[in-house]
Amino acid sequence: MIKMGVDYYPEHWERDLWDQDAELMRKTGVRLVRLAEFAWSRLEPEEDRYDFAWLDDAIDVFHRRGIEVVLGTPTNTPPNWLVERHPDVLPVDSLLHPRNPGIRGHRCYNSPSMRQYSEKIVDKLASHYSKHPAVVGWQIDNEFALNECHCENCSERFRQWLSAKYESLEALNRAWGTVVWSGEYSSWSQINPPLGGTAFKNPSYLLDWKRFETDSVAEFQQLQADVLRNRCPGHFVTHNIWSYPMSLDYYKLCETLDFASLDYYPNTSPEKSMISGYSGALTLDLTRGIKRRNFWIMETISGPPGCWFPMWRTPQPGFIRAFAWQCVSRGADTLVHFRWRNAPAGAEQFWHGLIDHSNVPGRRFEEYVKLCEEVNRLSPLLSGSTVKSEAAILHSHDLYNALQIQPQAEGMDYFDNLKLYHRAMTKLGIQSDALNTTADLSGYRFIVAPSLYLLDKRVARHLEECVRNGATLIVTNRSGVKNMNNVCRMEPLPGLLAEAAGVSVSEYDPIGKDVHSIRAKNGKTYTCAQWCDILELSGAAPIAWYEDDFFAGKPAASVHSLGDGKVYYLGMIAEENFYVDFFREAASEAGVELFPDLPEGVQISVRQKGEERYLFILNLSRNRQTVTLDQAYSSQLHERRIGPKLDMEPYEVEIVELA
Amino acid sequence: MIKMGVDYYPEHWERDLWDQDAELMRKTGVRLVRLAEFAWSRLEPEEDRYDFAWLDDAIDVFHRRGIEVVLGTPTNTPPNWLVERHPDVLPVDSLLHPRNPGIRGHRCYNSPSMRQYSEKIVDKLASHYSKHPAVVGWQIDNEFALNECHCENCSERFRQWLSAKYESLEALNRAWGTVVWSGEYSSWSQINPPLGGTAFKNPSYLLDWKRFETDSVAEFQQLQADVLRNRCPGHFVTHNIWSYPMSLDYYKLCETLDFASLDYYPNTSPEKSMISGYSGALTLDLTRGIKRRNFWIMETISGPPGCWFPMWRTPQPGFIRAFAWQCVSRGADTLVHFRWRNAPAGAEQFWHGLIDHSNVPGRRFEEYVKLCEEVNRLSPLLSGSTVKSEAAILHSHDLYNALQIQPQAEGMDYFDNLKLYHRAMTKLGIQSDALNTTADLSGYRFIVAPSLYLLDKRVARHLEECVRNGATLIVTNRSGVKNMNNVCRMEPLPGLLAEAAGVSVSEYDPIGKDVHSIRAKNGKTYTCAQWCDILELSGAAPIAWYEDDFFAGKPAASVHSLGDGKVYYLGMIAEENFYVDFFREAASEAGVELFPDLPEGVQISVRQKGEERYLFILNLSRNRQTVTLDQAYSSQLHERRIGPKLDMEPYEVEIVELA
Amino acid sequence: MIKMGVDYYPEHWERDLWDQDAELMRKTGVRLVRLAEFAWSRLEPEEDRYDFAWLDDAIDVFHRRGIEVVLGTPTNTPPNWLVERHPDVLPVDSLLHPRNPGIRGHRCYNSPSMRQYSEKIVDKLASHYSKHPAVVGWQIDNEFALNECHCENCSERFRQWLSAKYESLEALNRAWGTVVWSGEYSSWSQINPPLGGTAFKNPSYLLDWKRFETDSVAEFQQLQADVLRNRCPGHFVTHNIWSYPMSLDYYKLCETLDFASLDYYPNTSPEKSMISGYSGALTLDLTRGIKRRNFWIMETISGPPGCWFPMWRTPQPGFIRAFAWQCVSRGADTLVHFRWRNAPAGAEQFWHGLIDHSNVPGRRFEEYVKLCEEVNRLSPLLSGSTVKSEAAILHSHDLYNALQIQPQAEGMDYFDNLKLYHRAMTKLGIQSDALNTTADLSGYRFIVAPSLYLLDKRVARHLEECVRNGATLIVTNRSGVKNMNNVCRMEPLPGLLAEAAGVSVSEYDPIGKDVHSIRAKNGKTYTCAQWCDILELSGAAPIAWYEDDFFAGKPAASVHSLGDGKVYYLGMIAEENFYVDFFREAASEAGVELFPDLPEGVQISVRQKGEERYLFILNLSRNRQTVTLDQAYSSQLHERRIGPKLDMEPYEVEIVELA
Repeated sequence: MIKMGVDYYPEHWERDLWDQDAELMRKTGVRLVRLAEFAWSRLEPEEDRYDFAWLDDAIDVFHRRGIEVVLGTPTNTPPNWLVERHPDVLPVDSLLHPRNPGIRGHRCYNSPSMRQYSEKIVDKLASHYSKHPAVVGWQIDNEFALNECHCENCSERFRQWLSAKYESLEALNRAWGTVVWSGEYSSWSQINPPLGGTAFKNPSYLLDWKRFETDSVAEFQQLQADVLRNRCPGHFVTHNIWSYPMSLDYYKLCETLDFASLDYYPNTSPEKSMISGYSGALTLDLTRGIKRRNFWIMETISGPPGCWFPMWRTPQPGFIRAFAWQCVSRGADTLVHFRWRNAPAGAEQFWHGLIDHSNVPGRRFEEYVKLCEEVNRLSPLLSGSTVKSEAAILHSHDLYNALQIQPQAEGMDYFDNLKLYHRAMTKLGIQSDALNTTADLSGYRFIVAPSLYLLDKRVARHLEECVRNGATLIVTNRSGVKNMNNVCRMEPLPGLLAEAAGVSVSEYDPIGKDVHSIRAKNGKTYTCAQWCDILELSGAAPIAWYEDDFFAGKPAASVHSLGDGKVYYLGMIAEENFYVDFFREAASEAGVELFPDLPEGVQISVRQKGEERYLFILNLSRNRQTVTLDQAYSSQLHERRIGPKLDMEPYEVEIVELA
Repeated sequence: MIKMGVDYYPEHWERDLWDQDAELMRKTGVRLVRLAEFAWSRLEPEEDRYDFAWLDDAIDVFHRRGIEVVLGTPTNTPPNWLVERHPDVLPVDSLLHPRNPGIRGHRCYNSPSMRQYSEKIVDKLASHYSKHPAVVGWQIDNEFALNECHCENCSERFRQWLSAKYESLEALNRAWGTVVWSGEYSSWSQINPPLGGTAFKNPSYLLDWKRFETDSVAEFQQLQADVLRNRCPGHFVTHNIWSYPMSLDYYKLCETLDFASLDYYPNTSPEKSMISGYSGALTLDLTRGIKRRNFWIMETISGPPGCWFPMWRTPQPGFIRAFAWQCVSRGADTLVHFRWRNAPAGAEQFWHGLIDHSNVPGRRFEEYVKLCEEVNRLSPLLSGSTVKSEAAILHSHDLYNALQIQPQAEGMDYFDNLKLYHRAMTKLGIQSDALNTTADLSGYRFIVAPSLYLLDKRVARHLEECVRNGATLIVTNRSGVKNMNNVCRMEPLPGLLAEAAGVSVSEYDPIGKDVHSIRAKNGKTYTCAQWCDILELSGAAPIAWYEDDFFAGKPAASVHSLGDGKVYYLGMIAEENFYVDFFREAASEAGVELFPDLPEGVQISVRQKGEERYLFILNLSRNRQTVTLDQAYSSQLHERRIGPKLDMEPYEVEIVELA
Repeated sequence: MIKMGVDYYPEHWERDLWDQDAELMRKTGVRLVRLAEFAWSRLEPEEDRYDFAWLDDAIDVFHRRGIEVVLGTPTNTPPNWLVERHPDVLPVDSLLHPRNPGIRGHRCYNSPSMRQYSEKIVDKLASHYSKHPAVVGWQIDNEFALNECHCENCSERFRQWLSAKYESLEALNRAWGTVVWSGEYSSWSQINPPLGGTAFKNPSYLLDWKRFETDSVAEFQQLQADVLRNRCPGHFVTHNIWSYPMSLDYYKLCETLDFASLDYYPNTSPEKSMISGYSGALTLDLTRGIKRRNFWIMETISGPPGCWFPMWRTPQPGFIRAFAWQCVSRGADTLVHFRWRNAPAGAEQFWHGLIDHSNVPGRRFEEYVKLCEEVNRLSPLLSGSTVKSEAAILHSHDLYNALQIQPQAEGMDYFDNLKLYHRAMTKLGIQSDALNTTADLSGYRFIVAPSLYLLDKRVARHLEECVRNGATLIVTNRSGVKNMNNVCRMEPLPGLLAEAAGVSVSEYDPIGKDVHSIRAKNGKTYTCAQWCDILELSGAAPIAWYEDDFFAGKPAASVHSLGDGKVYYLGMIAEENFYVDFFREAASEAGVELFPDLPEGVQISVRQKGEERYLFILNLSRNRQTVTLDQAYSSQLHERRIGPKLDMEPYEVEIVELA
């Protein structure tokens, strides 16, 4: 089943609205609501006094109408009585200032009080609702991120974590290279969280700190997951992640979950609308890649966001529906829109829901009604299908963190470059899985591996093996620079991949925002920026050359045959056109399926089950576009024949079954 | 009497300069000095040791020359001995860092020590000078603003204030909607000032915090006012406000005062000089509107300001005089120039006075001499006259604060829009009173009410009543959004004014800095930005339509007849020309007096007493301009006939008596 | 001897690399290494446990190959055990947050613990190495700067320092003008460091605070210098300064040293490369001016810098060599390149050395090899020579600080203007000494004295005397404004120099970023910005006039004959061309040697000993340039005849002996 849901907060409304709202949901085709997220102060108004009656009542209101319920655990917002009694609940920043309540997320993952009270409230909720027929599963907390808490509890846990990892101070001093600048520790007690907030500290230490932070979040979540698994064996457990890029390691975080859920807010600004559909495609492919299976959208755009920032533009007609279908096209199995109606009070008043404060359903709600009808109609068809890709693009929170800690060149951003490569693939209609760099990649024909800055032998060997078995691998600049301790390797770059790539970097120039150009084998010239590796070929053949500066004429990119596959090395960051041209040729050669003449802003994706293959065609732009299909098809969405020439209105969607 | 004065600091100079200075003032026509502001450490060098001898001496120096004295209470700058002995005097910021002495304004309004010592020094001064024949009145403290102090005393007082306002925690929780994000308070002790400084907190709480802050200032001032009223029944009491926009509610602050005083520093930069005269006109109209009567200028520009920022441009020849006359034209009855001579030491060395450090009077002083001569000459004529307006523009510190707490759209600024509307009126020669939104508006023909975002029934009904009685009312976007608790109303916008306006907002698009266009009934096209309300007419007639986006063709503005008057609703923020064209027509229809062909930068204003009406014509620009009067007049300022064609040099001023 | 050296960190590398590295150094012609800077945690791993064995070993590795050793005292980086045991070691910022270890420079100069432990480790090192034949001298600490520490020890020392300077509180209150804003102190205990970090405090106080800070650094250094002088009478003592502009007073700091050393990193960005050679020339002239003798380069660019900021561009071919020769040309007698090889770990991984992490010597190293060969070859020729100048340009850290405390006009920057004047001179081939404003200037023919904002009689009289004896003096706007207490003088500007200059400033306009123009006596028009003094001539003759605004036609600059010399007064800051034209004429008239037709980016400098004069010609640009010499010469660097027409490749260098 592909289900439609909404986020609903009964505690924000008078009781008499609940029935009206639920009735309208039922009529609209809503099949699921998420409740109780953030409601701790209502569920436990004072320590040990629990009040679930109102939630029972609310759940029944939905249950009576056949609407399922997902419950959020309320641990994102510890109530004031808890904060007052146990101030260790509050995280403290690098200057030791507490993050005070009043906003949300004011909880230290390592606070003993926070852990104890969280387990207790979750246990009460889980026990109470484990048997309720409407309740199907749980969302733990909300949009986890790294706290960067510097409290005594975190300090102590960090030391324990390090001690478990390195066993001895000597080993830690060696691994981090603390001898530089007399940073050697002679006692564990000298190690603290990064106080003072400066970014100029030992990068090995800073990276381990980020890893510890992820583990703290994962542990905090595990406490709740254990309670839920124990009390509610029939329920699923998930968490709604906050999008990308992210310092928190989602791969670790989601290990314990049944599936990943995403909060998805594509940008509505006209200026960004052309590119935001592509960034969104990457976000969705990444989310699917976390657990390598279908996922949920736990929140998505229903109107203009805004509140602690000026409001965004309102979504254009068709925007809400088109981006909802984009989620399905890339593997979402449930869509929960945030939120039913704007909050009248509190800090999120202008994060608009489907219905405005006036409670008069308007244009956006009408669009949602249509979407519900369509999804419910196509649900039997799509149910059980998923996305299968021949191409993979690698991503890692560890790499993101390491490259945030030490920016390499002005304007060089790990995640922006990932978007660049993925966008070029999406424009070519290359379906790709966005996977952790440590993932098993057997079976992929085409692997894009951006900036494997930290690299260990296991990953390097696995990539090499994939190539020997026939894969095409794209390696880029800033690969093989460091070991996993964030310490530089004393080898010619790209280090552990140099032999496989058949090149070494004789020198590099961090050109930053200066614009240079390269000439490719195809005779075309492209701009490049950020970085130039000057290559020395040791087996590889050049495929592009620099045209500027003292390294004009030197190879910028190369290809090397290895076993049954090929390794490309790209020493520079070029403009998007380069990647479109390059991937078109390289992916074709690798035998990857393409859909190469998509107009700007139009995306395709295929979901399949067994032999059935459903092609989604989405015009995620503000312009009319024409797509050329290989033949005519019956639209699964509208009762009509379409193609081979398909004219699409802005934000129009089509779904066809491929022959 | 219209009087000329200067700010003078005898304590900054050797004793022998006092007589020279006073003598030159006398010759120049200075009739008043302000003294003793900031002089606490000289008046009470140690606790309970008072030294007024030097001030007696200084006052006598002026008294002997017939110059009156206004005394400033020195509470803006508690002396070091007080701070050292009672650190609770210092305000603390949201991270609990004290604002240390060394600059000024380092005093918490709720500090018991500060209150006690302030009362004592004011009492001593008031007792000592109550009978001095030269002393005519008092300025309390200096340029009050909100402290945003987070100390224990403020916390405690805030809780008391809330308890007095809401009576119960339940009522407060309900009024603020604290249930959102589990923010419910179960004990008063959980309520704190906004620690951590984040703006993402509950907006109802944040707005009440601002109101509490205003009340704290007002209370602190009242303590001093009570002493002064008691000891010096014959003296006036005022305060010098710091200009606009301002979080502190001047209406509340000035309730206890005899009249408002303004510190007025028009911008000298060539780039800003064209617009700063218009912003100044609004500032002056607002100042007159605080007490709805004439006011004083307690400080105004005498040379380039500068010190903790790079110096401004020096005022052009004529600038100082022209802006002084602008003050008079809009209701100032006394002009005190800041300051006689630049301070040689301290942080304000380069905030230039009339005379430079060299003590050689120069170009600026010569201009001042001329100004004194003119003001003293015309004083009998203008004395007792004031400004009377047919138009009003509404303003509120509460609205300003609420819209600062939650910016609505990128580039949308409450006070900037107020300036836009007022500027258009000023360019049309429409004299307006700038009044509190809660003011009695009976008798005005034309009322501009920008963004009544917070609105209660009393104000809505009063506006409606004014319209029924014949007024023309201009309502804009973001009106009727919330109740006075900063909680959204669950009604179609503009909420309480929807019926009177005959429209409702079916949807809006916060377009921010995107530029769209509208077409008006007059056939012209204008750009708009910030916001677009898409209107649904329910009785009103459209007067402008959108030309862009999915709402092209939809009404952007409308007019609705109601009783003997009209309500215009403007759903967008357009370029200035729109308002000039629109106000010209709408104000004419409403029977408001216009002076519509003023050249850029030229302002007019009328002061009247009984039948006498004095027209001020000010060229507040760097360019020569030609004004066309309805007939020829005798200049009251120069011995000449002027008009109907009047050529004006940059910064030239004319005053004529209207027929 | 002109020596080549490198910075080397044996503690960063495995022992077996030391011999390889030293062997390669020997072959390359490296004659000196700097060691042990930052190595405290290795030298004293725990309190009172010293381990010098590794350093003995390392020194021997070099000694065996005839390479001399400079030792750095490691006090820049107190080890963790010291910080943990004595937290007073850490400086605290204006909000009382400690600067935590993990970066470097985490030591309070006034901390009793820091002083005690520093003396102890330096004493141990000095005793141990005083007799080692390889060790030739010491570098104390690293790149001193003002700490701006606000700890209790600093507070107490500051009070003592003030008490020693002013003797009584009354005198201090008077000198600082604390009466302004009631800032008078009635007890020493009320005086604190500038807590709260605001720049709006009393400028006299803020300037004395900076002076105290310099004295704190100098005292901290003196403690170490005393130990070193005592233990190692045959060794030199120096410190590596961090470049300009700088709040710390290098003149005071270097009094105790044998010579100054500079860390020199010219900017590699293409955009800045044209100007950075000129800024570098000033830096080198300033460094030579500190002790008025030749100096060392203790660190200089060997590859792209980067780490806590994105990496810079790599130095172009020839860049490293050319800038090294620039140092020699302006008085450097030893060049120590930073660093031999990139650090593999720690926060400075990407501050590139001569050899990259791969340890494969590349292009940059080849260039260094060539440089070593050249320097070693020319060393006998150049040894004992120095730079002699007829022109001087005055500089002062006190002025820099005073003008940072109170920026005068937008875009007006004391040091940027100094660069402007020096650049114009350098473009004309005018060799100049950049000296402290208090220096003895007898013998200079041409003295440029920018913005003598603080001025005392001694300096004013000395300048006047120089002029009477035949010198040409250039005085600029913002001269004579204040006394040395940062209090304004009550005299017409330029105050103490008004008579000598034969002008007074009747008024000024801080035009900031507005662009105006002047017309000079030569008939040409130039833009000006920042500031306009309107001059009243009292003996001087005008040489330039304003063309804009109300002061159009008024003199902007003037010349006045006095005794055998002349005083120019420049009331504005003009574009560079003005100074090139003006200095060309004024310096020629003063009989100063010029080289006036140098192409953009080409610099010359002369070193001489006795009658021998060596002309350095440096193309510090990315373009080929042609220089016209007065005749043909033999290149001392290459075996060839050059000139009179000399074509120079980018970054090419020539050295000839002048006839």
